[in-house]
Amino acid sequence: MKLYFSPTQLRHRPTQYLVHGRIVRPLENPDRAETLKAALQTLGVEAFEPDDHGLAPILAVHADHYVDYLRTAYAEFAALPNAGPEVFPNVHPYSAGTAGLGARGRPRTTGILGRTGWYVGDLSCAMTEGTYDAAYASAQTATSAARDVAGGARRSFALCRPPGHHAYHDRASGFCFLNNAAIAAQALRARFAKVAILDFDTHHGDGTQAIFSARPDVFVCSVHTDPSAYYPHFFGYADERGEGEGEGFNLNLPLAFGAGDAEFTGAVGALCEAIAAFGAEALVVSAGWDAHGADPLSRLAVTTAAYGKIGERIAALDLPTVIVQEGGYSLAAVAEAAPLFTERFLQSHR
Amino acid sequence: MKLYFSPTQLRHRPTQYLVHGRIVRPLENPDRAETLKAALQTLGVEAFEPDDHGLAPILAVHADHYVDYLRTAYAEFAALPNAGPEVFPNVHPYSAGTAGLGARGRPRTTGILGRTGWYVGDLSCAMTEGTYDAAYASAQTATSAARDVAGGARRSFALCRPPGHHAYHDRASGFCFLNNAAIAAQALRARFAKVAILDFDTHHGDGTQAIFSARPDVFVCSVHTDPSAYYPHFFGYADERGEGEGEGFNLNLPLAFGAGDAEFTGAVGALCEAIAAFGAEALVVSAGWDAHGADPLSRLAVTTAAYGKIGERIAALDLPTVIVQEGGYSLAAVAEAAPLFTERFLQSHR
Repeated sequence: MKLYFSPTQLRHRPTQYLVHGRIVRPLENPDRAETLKAALQTLGVEAFEPDDHGLAPILAVHADHYVDYLRTAYAEFAALPNAGPEVFPNVHPYSAGTAGLGARGRPRTTGILGRTGWYVGDLSCAMTEGTYDAAYASAQTATSAARDVAGGARRSFALCRPPGHHAYHDRASGFCFLNNAAIAAQALRARFAKVAILDFDTHHGDGTQAIFSARPDVFVCSVHTDPSAYYPHFFGYADERGEGEGEGFNLNLPLAFGAGDAEFTGAVGALCEAIAAFGAEALVVSAGWDAHGADPLSRLAVTTAAYGKIGERIAALDLPTVIVQEGGYSLAAVAEAAPLFTERFLQSHR
Repeated sequence: MKLYFSPTQLRHRPTQYLVHGRIVRPLENPDRAETLKAALQTLGVEAFEPDDHGLAPILAVHADHYVDYLRTAYAEFAALPNAGPEVFPNVHPYSAGTAGLGARGRPRTTGILGRTGWYVGDLSCAMTEGTYDAAYASAQTATSAARDVAGGARRSFALCRPPGHHAYHDRASGFCFLNNAAIAAQALRARFAKVAILDFDTHHGDGTQAIFSARPDVFVCSVHTDPSAYYPHFFGYADERGEGEGEGFNLNLPLAFGAGDAEFTGAVGALCEAIAAFGAEALVVSAGWDAHGADPLSRLAVTTAAYGKIGERIAALDLPTVIVQEGGYSLAAVAEAAPLFTERFLQSHR
């Protein structure tokens, strides 16, 4: 199995993150990627730098005006009087459906503050000078891994960072800028008619869900912490099943606070059954390690052993598979869970 | 003319405001109200404390679940681990119309972080222990002034603070929590069939516009800075004319950066003509002093003299009038513009 990673992905180095009404250091930092890479290389997988596939795979799931914004935001924002160290939104459009706003699809406001509020959904996405390059490289990592599998490889690992599953068609949020898993799934569609995304990050992948919500060709399913009082708060509920032509092609299995290995592995098993029933021809795994009880954001009690079990279970789907890195913020937990998952996956996957 | 004000309004004392990617001290502070009160009292107007009219006048324009949130948010937020000094949102719902979100009308998430992101639209509305009481008192000030006029007085002045015109039916933003002008206009409707709101604050009153957007009985009109690159960014454009039954009952006259007295007074004149054509029976003035060139947020070049002129012009409408205090952040400019406006208004108003 090839492991894709670009050192350019380390160029996203934010210093600000607003949590509980206070600015703190971001949990999503370059050390995560370094730790993961080292941990996975203990398995003997070889690391490759991604090719540059250009903007086309990104624009297949993201709005061009959003990507334009990401590319130019830092320079515009830095030119503001007394600008802070990075792009940080402070005003957001009204969501409750005042006529004309949602329907517009893009902001009328041309200023950097209004566009930042429109395109950046929360205070976890501070953008530094290198953020666009890092997010672009992370998306290329996903694309390279997916093209490998579309080209006949049975599996690949995209060590994406920044992560992607909270990124919408036209919005950054939850540490995410470009939706690497969605980009990978869309790239797989070039060869496979039916693609599934299985997301076991402890946060619901609201961006991924929204991108494919109206589509029957990409089945999105997720186990995550109940969002009733947990990020991403507004999506991830069990009754979100897709819409329009995509109705029935989205599956959420939220877990209550405190759930442990039995609930977590049981839910992954149920997701795998649904993927098989869907008739998936290829799989993207949105792999986060933050359900682990040691993770600073976790409200679950999942242990390292569970990640080994779900690696085996997912391998048993017997599908061409792209593993895409999402969250996981305890370096110790990441260094245990990611290699155990991958080892068991590789042992079982034909 | 009676001037209404409650010292409880001073209990909103936030310490954080995010601007250009940096936390600074809020511009909207208790000193503004003290300065205004002293300046207006030089005219000989007598200050009264508002009566407590209860929640009914507030709930006539705001959602009950939003008001519940405002009342309980501080205590809930302060109980979070390592909570900051005040309620400060860090995550916002997606606005671009994913099915189900806008239609819901209220958040499903029960946690304080998700509800804060839902109900608080930007980083200018940090909520302290006294914020709800201050906003409630500010709304009572507006209600008392409006009931005076509904009861037969020709005019009254509501020294509201915190201000209100950016507050939506169910959302705080732009230093505003409860929409005092909307509450006053609705209270006037008990006696007058057709009420107009004239807003000359330099920021578009997006909350007021949204509250009355679909209604033909309250005509909302505003002169303000072009929002293309200015707060509130997403609304305030000239083609927003109301919707449904309210179509044609909203009028925006945005001014380009750098506009001065001629453009400002000319626009107020045009708004007055539209109010007369509407056939208004009573008037609410959303009075902000932040178009003044000395205001730290101003991008216009309006001078003190212009406020005298618009005071005369608005008085010439010859309508029962409630003046509701909105913005204005240069204490020096406020201390000149507010009394000159009021003096000229009183000299001309019969």
